[in-house]
Amino acid sequence: MKQSKLFVNTLREAPSDAEAVSHQLLLRGGFIRQLAAGVYSYLPLGWRVLRNIERIIREELDRAGAQELLMPALQPAELWKDSGRYDAYGPELIRLRDRHDREFALGPTHEEVITALVKQEIGSYRKMPVTLYQIQTKFRDERRPRFGLLRGREFLMKDAYSFDTSWEGLDHSYRNMYEAYERIFQRCGLNFRAVEADAGAIGGEGETHEFMALAEVGEDTVATCSNCGYAANLEMAKSGEQAQGKNQPTTEPIQKIHTPNVRTIEQLSQFLEAAPQEIMKTLIYMADDQPVAVVIRGDHEVNEIKVKHYLGAETLGLADPEAIQKAVGVSAGFAGPIGMKIPVLVDFAVLQMAAGVCGANETDAHVIHVVPGRDFSIEQTGDFRNAEEGDRCPNCQEGELTFYKGIEVGHVFKLGTKYSDPLGARYLDSNGREQTMIMGCYGIGVSRLLSAIVEQSHDDRGIIWPQAIAPYQVHLIVISTKDEAQVTLANELYETLQRQGMEVLFDDRDERAGIKFNDSDLLGIPYRIVVGKEASNGKVEFVERKNNVKQTLSKEELVAQSVFRTL
Amino acid sequence: MKQSKLFVNTLREAPSDAEAVSHQLLLRGGFIRQLAAGVYSYLPLGWRVLRNIERIIREELDRAGAQELLMPALQPAELWKDSGRYDAYGPELIRLRDRHDREFALGPTHEEVITALVKQEIGSYRKMPVTLYQIQTKFRDERRPRFGLLRGREFLMKDAYSFDTSWEGLDHSYRNMYEAYERIFQRCGLNFRAVEADAGAIGGEGETHEFMALAEVGEDTVATCSNCGYAANLEMAKSGEQAQGKNQPTTEPIQKIHTPNVRTIEQLSQFLEAAPQEIMKTLIYMADDQPVAVVIRGDHEVNEIKVKHYLGAETLGLADPEAIQKAVGVSAGFAGPIGMKIPVLVDFAVLQMAAGVCGANETDAHVIHVVPGRDFSIEQTGDFRNAEEGDRCPNCQEGELTFYKGIEVGHVFKLGTKYSDPLGARYLDSNGREQTMIMGCYGIGVSRLLSAIVEQSHDDRGIIWPQAIAPYQVHLIVISTKDEAQVTLANELYETLQRQGMEVLFDDRDERAGIKFNDSDLLGIPYRIVVGKEASNGKVEFVERKNNVKQTLSKEELVAQSVFRTL
Repeated sequence: MKQSKLFVNTLREAPSDAEAVSHQLLLRGGFIRQLAAGVYSYLPLGWRVLRNIERIIREELDRAGAQELLMPALQPAELWKDSGRYDAYGPELIRLRDRHDREFALGPTHEEVITALVKQEIGSYRKMPVTLYQIQTKFRDERRPRFGLLRGREFLMKDAYSFDTSWEGLDHSYRNMYEAYERIFQRCGLNFRAVEADAGAIGGEGETHEFMALAEVGEDTVATCSNCGYAANLEMAKSGEQAQGKNQPTTEPIQKIHTPNVRTIEQLSQFLEAAPQEIMKTLIYMADDQPVAVVIRGDHEVNEIKVKHYLGAETLGLADPEAIQKAVGVSAGFAGPIGMKIPVLVDFAVLQMAAGVCGANETDAHVIHVVPGRDFSIEQTGDFRNAEEGDRCPNCQEGELTFYKGIEVGHVFKLGTKYSDPLGARYLDSNGREQTMIMGCYGIGVSRLLSAIVEQSHDDRGIIWPQAIAPYQVHLIVISTKDEAQVTLANELYETLQRQGMEVLFDDRDERAGIKFNDSDLLGIPYRIVVGKEASNGKVEFVERKNNVKQTLSKEELVAQSVFRTL
Repeated sequence: MKQSKLFVNTLREAPSDAEAVSHQLLLRGGFIRQLAAGVYSYLPLGWRVLRNIERIIREELDRAGAQELLMPALQPAELWKDSGRYDAYGPELIRLRDRHDREFALGPTHEEVITALVKQEIGSYRKMPVTLYQIQTKFRDERRPRFGLLRGREFLMKDAYSFDTSWEGLDHSYRNMYEAYERIFQRCGLNFRAVEADAGAIGGEGETHEFMALAEVGEDTVATCSNCGYAANLEMAKSGEQAQGKNQPTTEPIQKIHTPNVRTIEQLSQFLEAAPQEIMKTLIYMADDQPVAVVIRGDHEVNEIKVKHYLGAETLGLADPEAIQKAVGVSAGFAGPIGMKIPVLVDFAVLQMAAGVCGANETDAHVIHVVPGRDFSIEQTGDFRNAEEGDRCPNCQEGELTFYKGIEVGHVFKLGTKYSDPLGARYLDSNGREQTMIMGCYGIGVSRLLSAIVEQSHDDRGIIWPQAIAPYQVHLIVISTKDEAQVTLANELYETLQRQGMEVLFDDRDERAGIKFNDSDLLGIPYRIVVGKEASNGKVEFVERKNNVKQTLSKEELVAQSVFRTL
């Protein structure tokens, strides 16, 4: 492709609202353009990268025995009502009515459609297991679309669904996809970790892993242990204390202290000259409309997902001031577990405290020398806090947890019968008995993956595309379009390299060398060939984008480069 | 692919509401499934065919120098208001609001988006001309979706847009796409004609051609001349009479006749014992809210598009009874051109009548011996009727017109400045002067094309896929999965053919031979290899789907088949 003809327009500066590096570089390099908040066009260079990613995904999923199909974006609301998600999905689900006033959703995901389809097509165990996938445009009306392609409202996704006759079969299908995902991300040159995760809104009963691209801009936190390889999303990472014993408690009796206007942990810590580790923090939640108190150490954070799982609650959220007053008879800052009438969940770390300070359930009062189990019930104890960096690893009990920021680029779920049951996807087993299909689902954010790769692979001059997904493999630059020797040699190389099957972007523009180099750095094509003054001697400069290593080579030496032979 | 694992379910009968053969066969063969009216899933076999069509389109458009990109389906309503189409498009445009109550349209086409994009990216003539395309999902809320993929509400389309600095440039871009389309349809094995057409709702000032797949189910009529190659959509086909003279008129004076309750041409013809060719039919239209009369011969049909073009009207429709009464003072059945106060358009064929019968503009009365020009004004004459089969060719004046039914699978338009002007897509020319871009647009209904191919290529047993787009190239069938010799030979062939790069569907199912053959006929894979009783002698049957020609071949003879060498 001759760059003079390419539909691309590089920008010196990205719009000021582009926060993420990938967003800035993809805009500046002319890979994408915004049409509306969270809605992007992929220009030819960006589209070429996406197509390369798609190709890798297809090759690996086909290799894993999955079959590709394509389902519609327009989905009858009826299906979503049948699965119970029409209301549950909330405002992220884009809803519309057709000219006959029938309700539709724009698919944010396809569990309902695929389950209804498979139900209709498969009646017997003989046709199972089957794994189906598509690469298709999804719609989610994000409250706050941002970071370019990282959180969009219209985006490309690969979604796959498996249908098995047993949980063991699902284990196999799940592992199969898990391994395909590892190969896909490896081939895309991504630095990633597969981590234990929470099933979240899509739901399901069993195991689930997220594939996290490690990057500072990531909105997720990944806790890992370098000793044993444990890795989990912070929302799921165990705190590592449950196996440990209780500290030797104090023998001092409890004592009420007047603490006027002392409401926060920080204020209390200062007022009593006590470290936050010596304070028991009590938070009041509403779990499915029932109040519940959670007691954790003052320096810890409640992990709502753990609390929710412990209670088996559908919804969980902090109680509002009115509800707190009603439930415990005092405002949030003075609540404490002693004498509390609502259920009290005590975090493992609190159990290990010799004594602590807590609210007295009385305005302007706290209690000191409080011992869990002596002064309040510890019937309901558990792991209710976020793990923290430096915590002992909950898996091996030896290593320490390290945290990374991650971008979720893939997710594998064991759905079980969450959709097949309400939608009636059943089959006849080998004994002629009707059984419910056991499902898994598997997603990759294709356009998000593109951005995640840029987050990981760039320098201050621009993008550095991994070879396998680069929009072109070679960037051929002629310095002067007026120098006959340069033009002749450049044209000759352009033809030769293309004949060898290489994808070459040829910067044949009548621009200054500085502009060409800057654009080339920005576009990030892995190998650059510069045809300049040495052209009259038949020599060119060969540069690797990622390390800026330069070599002066003859045409023959260039064409024989091993990197080109392996392309 | 082993058929026992393939996600496909053939049906003995298609649903009774599937009228078109392609719809029936695609459903029966398990290529597609309906999710909602006009909304389909493409199952693995159907998706493979679509991907083959996509590949051909990409290869030919890339060859023509067009660049691929991908634009969003979610389009801000603002853009559509700027172009003036938000209201004009009517209920076919699917509209929605996001969570912030901003209006969006689901793109039925992308003129607005591409024009806004190119406006933003291209400022100079130096970056032009450029042709951009995408293969993308479109949404149109058809009033009456039908015939499966032929008229859907969500469908795959290839849309391309060219941007030139001059009309001559547009001519070149247009011709370039026109030729690419010819290559695409040829490679897809389609029987098609490129015909002159009307620009319709997308609009534009200049030339436009439709690519019509000839098929009985088609909703368009194509008029062609076998003598000179003239081909036009009936809506545009000239009637061929304009060059001819006027007949020798009668000298009889006009005479009013009492014709009680005679309102239709048929009634009048019987009542007066006059042929429809001797009657002048007068129809009253509203053109942009103004009444106008159109006079044509009794056996002809008014072509509203010709009338609309002649008048330069935005809208045209038959007047309702009330409006007719108001405009001509009589009901429709008795209207005639004599003494009419509203403008009268006279069709060329009427001019050639020696004399005729027409309404008297008086209830229960007609006039006979009416001579155009003598008895009413022929100031406004023109070609206002549909061409008819057997008409003299308007182009060569020698051949006769023949009609075919056609399915519009492609369309090329010269848009000119219809979008670039209101959306402000301007550039600086070589003199630094601001100019408006000259646009063309070019569409192919990708999913419709798939159906059109099936309409043309099937027999009473099923589909006959053209080689280039077949889901698999070879259908390998083993008759008995219990016969060791058969299974061994079939497996061996399966491996060998795949190693040779062939795409093989291997029917390894434990089913009766009859079922396998019926399914194979239905699926329509071009070549079939049957491993049956002769397997023990190392022989198989080789069958061409399209002509059912069978050969018994040894394994070596089979692999050496010339059809396989050219695959």
